[in-house]
Amino acid sequence: MCNGKAVYYQRHSNRHLCKKHFLKDFYRRVKYAVKKYSMIEKNDKIAIAMSGGKDSIVLAHVLKHLYGKRRDIEFFAITVDEGIEDYRDDTIKIAKKVCKELEIQHVIVNFKDEIGLTLDEMIKRGNRNACTYCGVFRKYLLNKTARKLGATKLATGHNLDDETQTILLNFLHSDIERLARLIPQRKQNNLILRIKPLREIYEREVVTYAILNDLPLSLDECPYSSFPVRSMVRDFLYEFENKYPGRKFSIMRSFEQLMPCLKNIYPQIELKRCSICGEPTARDICQPCNLKRELFSS
Amino acid sequence: MCNGKAVYYQRHSNRHLCKKHFLKDFYRRVKYAVKKYSMIEKNDKIAIAMSGGKDSIVLAHVLKHLYGKRRDIEFFAITVDEGIEDYRDDTIKIAKKVCKELEIQHVIVNFKDEIGLTLDEMIKRGNRNACTYCGVFRKYLLNKTARKLGATKLATGHNLDDETQTILLNFLHSDIERLARLIPQRKQNNLILRIKPLREIYEREVVTYAILNDLPLSLDECPYSSFPVRSMVRDFLYEFENKYPGRKFSIMRSFEQLMPCLKNIYPQIELKRCSICGEPTARDICQPCNLKRELFSS
Repeated sequence: MCNGKAVYYQRHSNRHLCKKHFLKDFYRRVKYAVKKYSMIEKNDKIAIAMSGGKDSIVLAHVLKHLYGKRRDIEFFAITVDEGIEDYRDDTIKIAKKVCKELEIQHVIVNFKDEIGLTLDEMIKRGNRNACTYCGVFRKYLLNKTARKLGATKLATGHNLDDETQTILLNFLHSDIERLARLIPQRKQNNLILRIKPLREIYEREVVTYAILNDLPLSLDECPYSSFPVRSMVRDFLYEFENKYPGRKFSIMRSFEQLMPCLKNIYPQIELKRCSICGEPTARDICQPCNLKRELFSS
Repeated sequence: MCNGKAVYYQRHSNRHLCKKHFLKDFYRRVKYAVKKYSMIEKNDKIAIAMSGGKDSIVLAHVLKHLYGKRRDIEFFAITVDEGIEDYRDDTIKIAKKVCKELEIQHVIVNFKDEIGLTLDEMIKRGNRNACTYCGVFRKYLLNKTARKLGATKLATGHNLDDETQTILLNFLHSDIERLARLIPQRKQNNLILRIKPLREIYEREVVTYAILNDLPLSLDECPYSSFPVRSMVRDFLYEFENKYPGRKFSIMRSFEQLMPCLKNIYPQIELKRCSICGEPTARDICQPCNLKRELFSS
C-alpha cells in the first residue's frame, strides 16, 4: 500500500500492511459492520460488556476512537465479576485501567452481591457445569445493569472467529433454532439489544490492534473454560482458513444469505416477564431464577 | 441385539451388531430414505449409475434385494467408460460381473465413441482439469443413456459421507446456490430425476455391506482424483464423527430443515433445450457442447 514498514500480513487480501493502513482497514470494517446492522444510531447510549479480555478492551478502544467525539452517542462499560479466585483480579484491573484511560464510566457488578454466591461457590454447591452458571447469570446481570443505567444497546466483543465457530457448531449439531438466534434481533421490552461491532474482524487482527495501540493484554484463561467440541471446530477453521484464506468471511456470508429463511422458520420469540423477578424470558420463569432456586433449595 | 457374533460396531447407536441385525438395520434405513423422498415409485424404471466402485456395487445389490421382486419396478445399469488407462478396466470388469450375478441389464457407453475423445486425450488437448471434463461428460452421458433406454429415475451411489461433505463444503464456500441444488428436484423435461438411496448410510457401512455380501471391492483410486479442499472437510468430519458419533446425521438434518428456505431463495431453474444438441440446460448452449467446442476448435 505504501512504503511504510509492514506490521501485519492480511492473508485474506494477500496484503502486507503498515500500522497506518492496518488501522485504516480495521476501522473501515468495523464501521461497515456497524452500519450494515444499524448497530449504533443517533442518541444511543451504549453499554460495553467489558470482561477485561482482549476482545472487550479492543472493542472499547475502537468504539471510543470511532464514535467518541459524537455528542449524541454515549458509552459506558460494565464488568461482571463472577468470583473466580486467582483469575478475575487481573482482568478487572485491566478493565479499570482501560476505562480510566478512555474516560469511560465503569460499573462493576458481582455475582456475590447480586446472586448471593460467587461462581466458585455455585460450582461447589450445585451440579451444573461452571459455564452454565456463568453464562446465564452474566447475561442476566449485563442486561439488567445496562437497562438500569439507561443503555439502549449492549455491545459485546465477539469477533469473526467466535461468530463463525458458533455458526458452524450450530449447523453441525443441527441446532437451527440456536443458529437463528444469532441473527441481530429487534428490540423487545426489557431486553437491551445486543450488538457485535467486531463480527467482521479476525481474532488475529484484534490481537494486532491491541499490540499496536499498547493496550494491556491478559493471556490468562478462565480455569473453568472447557469447550472440547468448540475447540475441534476452532482448530479445523483455523487450518481451513490458513489454507484457503477468507473462508471465515464465506461462512459469515452463508449465514447472512440464510438469515431471511431462518427468520421464517424461527421468528423472534415474544418475550414475557419472569413471574418471579420481572426480567425478560421466553418461559414463565427465567433461567436465572430457575438456577437460583436450584442453588438455594439444596 | 441377539447372541450372534458381532460384525459391526455402530457408533452412532452404540450397538454391536451381528450380520443379520446389521443388514436388517441397513435395509431399514435405505427404505426410510427411499420413502421419505419418494425415490422409487410404482412403474419406475431405474437406471443405476454403475462406476464399479464400492458405492455403486452396493447400491445395485441393495436395490435388487429390496425391490427386485416387484413386478412394477425395473432396473438396469449404466457404466460410463471415460477412457482412463490402467485404471478403468478393473472396475468395468467388476461392474459386468455384478450385473451378471444380479441379472441386471448392463449398458456401457464410452467417451471415445460418444464424445470423440477419451478422458486421457481430452486432458492432453484441453486446458481444463480432469474432473471438469469427467464430471460434465459423465453426467451428460448418464442422463442421455438413461433417457434413451426409458428410465424414469437415475440412481447414484452417494452415501452419507459424500453428502455431508458436499453440504459442508458449499456452506464453507458460501455457495448457497449449489447447496440448494442438493435438494431432491422435481421432474423436468429431458432430465431424468436423480435419486440417492444410500444418502443415510455411512461409508463404513457401505464397505461392511460389500464385505458381508462377498461383493468385489476395487480399491484403486482414479489417478486424476484430487480434491484438496474436500479432503480437509472429509478429514475433519471423520474426526468429528469419531468423537461425537451421529454428527453426520445432524448435518443432514440441518440441511433438511433449511430445505424449504433454500427452495425459496433458489427455486429450481426451468431448463431449456441446448440449441446445439437438444439436451437439457439452464443456458442456451449446454456445458458439454461448450467443452466440445473448446476441445475440437483448438
